[in-house]
Parts: sequence; C-alpha cells; structure tokens
Amino acid sequence: MAQALYHHHFCMEKQGGFRLQDHPTDMPVELDKKELKEMTARDTEKIIKLQERMYAQGTNSVLLIFQAMDAAGKDSCIRHVLSGVDPAGTQVWSFKAPSLEERAHDFLWRHACALPERGRIGIHNRSHYEEVLVVKVHPEFVLAQNLPGIVDLEDVTPQFWQLRYEAIRNFESHLAIQGTVIMKFLLHVSKKVQKDRFLERIDDPEKNWKFSMGDVRERAHWDDYMKAYEEAIDATAAPYAPWYIVPADEQWESRAIVARLVRERLERMDPRIPEASSGKVEELQSARKVLMSEPSG
Amino acid sequence: MAQALYHHHFCMEKQGGFRLQDHPTDMPVELDKKELKEMTARDTEKIIKLQERMYAQGTNSVLLIFQAMDAAGKDSCIRHVLSGVDPAGTQVWSFKAPSLEERAHDFLWRHACALPERGRIGIHNRSHYEEVLVVKVHPEFVLAQNLPGIVDLEDVTPQFWQLRYEAIRNFESHLAIQGTVIMKFLLHVSKKVQKDRFLERIDDPEKNWKFSMGDVRERAHWDDYMKAYEEAIDATAAPYAPWYIVPADEQWESRAIVARLVRERLERMDPRIPEASSGKVEELQSARKVLMSEPSG
Repeated sequence: MAQALYHHHFCMEKQGGFRLQDHPTDMPVELDKKELKEMTARDTEKIIKLQERMYAQGTNSVLLIFQAMDAAGKDSCIRHVLSGVDPAGTQVWSFKAPSLEERAHDFLWRHACALPERGRIGIHNRSHYEEVLVVKVHPEFVLAQNLPGIVDLEDVTPQFWQLRYEAIRNFESHLAIQGTVIMKFLLHVSKKVQKDRFLERIDDPEKNWKFSMGDVRERAHWDDYMKAYEEAIDATAAPYAPWYIVPADEQWESRAIVARLVRERLERMDPRIPEASSGKVEELQSARKVLMSEPSG
Repeated sequence: MAQALYHHHFCMEKQGGFRLQDHPTDMPVELDKKELKEMTARDTEKIIKLQERMYAQGTNSVLLIFQAMDAAGKDSCIRHVLSGVDPAGTQVWSFKAPSLEERAHDFLWRHACALPERGRIGIHNRSHYEEVLVVKVHPEFVLAQNLPGIVDLEDVTPQFWQLRYEAIRNFESHLAIQGTVIMKFLLHVSKKVQKDRFLERIDDPEKNWKFSMGDVRERAHWDDYMKAYEEAIDATAAPYAPWYIVPADEQWESRAIVARLVRERLERMDPRIPEASSGKVEELQSARKVLMSEPSG
C-alpha cells in the first residue's frame, strides 16, 4: 500500500514544463480505506514525535501551504493529518479575502506576518498563492489594491504576473535560507467531485453553513483557475519549496499522501534534542548546588 | 472518581477573601492514574466535538489562561487536554518576556492582539497576569515600561497595582460581553515538587534544554510570588472570568481536572450548528438549480 502511494510522482521541484492534465485527481490503483486510515494514523504519530524534537531543537520551522478549489478537502486534511500534534507546536492560518488594512500593504505582508516561529509547524490554509490564483482569474481585484502605475485592466499585463511569481520565488527562497522548510500542496480535485460535494453541502442541513452562492459562481471559472494553478506551480516549483500535486477525489487517499509526505520530510530534517554546551553543563551543575543547599521543608 | 474530582472546590468567581493556603497542591483523595488518563481522554474527545460545533456556529470564542510557577506542567497540560482538537480550532500563545515594541504599548496590548477569533479556543500560556505577577515581584520591570509619571520605585504604589487589577477586570468584562468565554487556571504546585522537577531537568540530558539558571533565581522569590498570585486572583475572580485553583503536584490529576472543567464549560455553552435562515434556504436551492443545469461531462 505504502509502495503504491510511494511510486506515484507527486513532487514538482523544477520550473518549466508542468502540465496539470498530466496529474490525476484520483490514484490509478485501488487502495483499501481501512489500511489508508491506519497508515495515516501511524504517520501522524510519527509527525507528533518529530515535531516535539523540532520544538526542543528550536532552529527550524516548517511551513505547509494548502491550496485547492473549494470542497477539495483542505480543512479536513489538515484536521486529520495534524490532529494530535501539540497544539502549541502548530499554527493554522486560514486566509480569507483581504481586509482594507491588508490590501494597503504589499501582497506578501499578511502572509509574512503569519509565518511560524522556529520549532513550530505553520499551516497556511490558502496563502500568498491566492494573489496569483483568484486575483489572476479576477484581475479587477488588482485594481482594488491601489498599486502604483496600475490604474486599469490593461496595466495588468503578463509581465505583472511574472513579477509576482518572481516576488514569490524570492520570498520563499529567503525563508528557506533562514531555516523554514516549505511544502506546498495542491489538493487536486475534479470538477465532477466538486459538484457532488457541493450538492452534499446543499442537501445536508448539518453542512449548509459551509456553503455559499459564491462557491458556485467561482466554479463557473473552473478552466481559468486550472490555467492559473498550472502557471503558478510551473513558475514557483523549486527544490527549496516543492509543490505536491495530491489526487483529492478520494479524501482518505489525499490525507494518507499528505501525512506520508510530511512525515518523510520531517524525517529528512532529523531534528534532535540539543545537547547541553559546556557552558550550559556548568550552569546546570551550579543550579543543582543551589537547589541542594536549600534548607529543607 | 469523577465525583471525587467534582466535589472539590476549584472555582473562584468572587472577589475578596481568597487565601491560597486554603487550596491544596494535591488532591486530598487517592486517585487511580489509569482511570484518570481514561477520563481525560474521554473528556478531550468531547471537547473535540464541542469545538467543531463552536466553529460552525461562529458566535463565541473561548480563552483559556494558564498561569503557574515554572515546572508546574502548563505545557504538558495544554498538550494532553487539547491534543486532538482540530489544529485550526485552537491557537496557543506562549508569552515570553516582552519585546521593546511590546513594552512600548500599554500592558494589555500584546495579549489583546493574540485573542482567539469567534469559533476558536485560544490558549494563553502565561498571559496579561504576568504584569501583576512577575512584574509585581520585580517592580523595577515597571520602570522599563516608561509609563507616564512612573520614574522611580516609589511611584509603584499599592494604588498602581489596584489600577492594573481594575484594567484587567474591565478588559475581561468587555471580552465576556462580546462573546468570549474566559477560564483562568492556576496550576498550583508546591515548592517541594518544583525542586524535584528542576532536579529532573538538570539530571536528564533529554530535559536540559527546558532549564535555565533564571528558573532557580525566580524560585528564591517563592513567597513573593505566592502573595502576588493570591492578590491577583482575589482582585480578578469574577463570574464571567473565574479562576480555577488546580492542584498540580500530580500531573495526571491536574490534566484530568482541567479537561473536565473545560468540557463542562463548553457543554454549558451548548454550541449548535446554525440552521439555514429562509434567505439561505432560497440561496441553497438556486445554487442547486445552477449545478443541476450544467451540461454533464
């Protein structure tokens, strides 16, 4: 089972030549749901232990970026893969439409403010990539950002988007050099499965709160979104910030894949509880003396 | 077992007459560790479900404040009680010594910035109470805050602290009125047990990283801290922001008590998945029509 997941090619770490259509929205092999659940649980156990050591070490942080069309299962994937990790060791940020204050800053600002501290796993549920996804599909959003020299839609040129990709590459490269391990997941769902999940949200009163008319309006731009994803991934895949194209038509598959990829990446980091330096050893011993010399009682 | 925990009086919600010495640092009855662990796990399961509903409802937030002397078990209590809750539903903030920027603001500012959004459980590991605890034990810290009219230690009068307590009461009362459910926990540990745990951190290389000489220095001010806790709790206990004095010499006891108290409080909130309004029902039905009229394929 693990092998079946394993041999599939999810990881993009080079720019150029990426085609979304080469990536399936479900796994080409039949997988057993019970086995997948068990595998995910074991991988999560392992992630919990690795994060504890990461926290003790305190030198690196991890940034997990989740992007997807609506109803692809981002929220539940985050819940399943990371539940059980020390809540003090994870920080989830769900980015909505930017506020006026956020729009008054450069497009990376609010995302930079939400970066994880060393020792923690930061999860960005949507991210700065929305600035080259939803904003690219609706270029009128750029106008609302009051950027210098951008006054009408004609100013939003291909060059404009190239500069945004470059800004993103530079941002992520900087973070990586400073010790942030970056993983970017596209939960890749088919248009058919999105429709099924929308209907479920409409028909199940317990799920009504998750649905809004805007979701259907965005669906009408499906092809534009796929093009925007393809271009964004193609322009920003890098060894220090790889994209993972995760088949998401079956939620248990996508969760198992994400859990396995995160576990493996943390294992490669190999975080270790730091050994006390010689100065620290002295400090510990003098603290010991102070404690032992206290009057008892 | 649950009854044994239950009949003990942890909750302080009135100002005046509080004495820390009336509260034990361990439970007066012998409790079975295995049973406590199972109870905590069941309570956590319940908290997970209640938080999900809280998130769907999106009207209230919960603020859990943890205060304690070093090595009382705050971190592990948070980990045990809240692990498994959707990481997107919790936000843990561990407050360290304030930065220059933070000190340049009023003393509640950084804590207000870290408040949980509606639908979430915010956990403050240390909190604005440090401003009437560590700062009260070391009044020279007040001078570093550059407050108007406070130029030497003589200016840090009893009245100064009374005004801080009042500011805290007003802050918490405002939050409560706006829909934040507040619970404040003192993990109440004995001086003897703190010493044992410090020695463990000194003697176990895996735990060295948790220890610093500063911890022993602060221990020398134990009695001043106890007095500061007593006064702070006495001045800020309120029905809308109760203090819970949790015996913390046995970590499994304190975790079980905190889990049970949080669970009960969330049950009293009784969060519910919102029913669709008539406008929303119309919207859902028109979305359904749009989806069903799509050309198939």
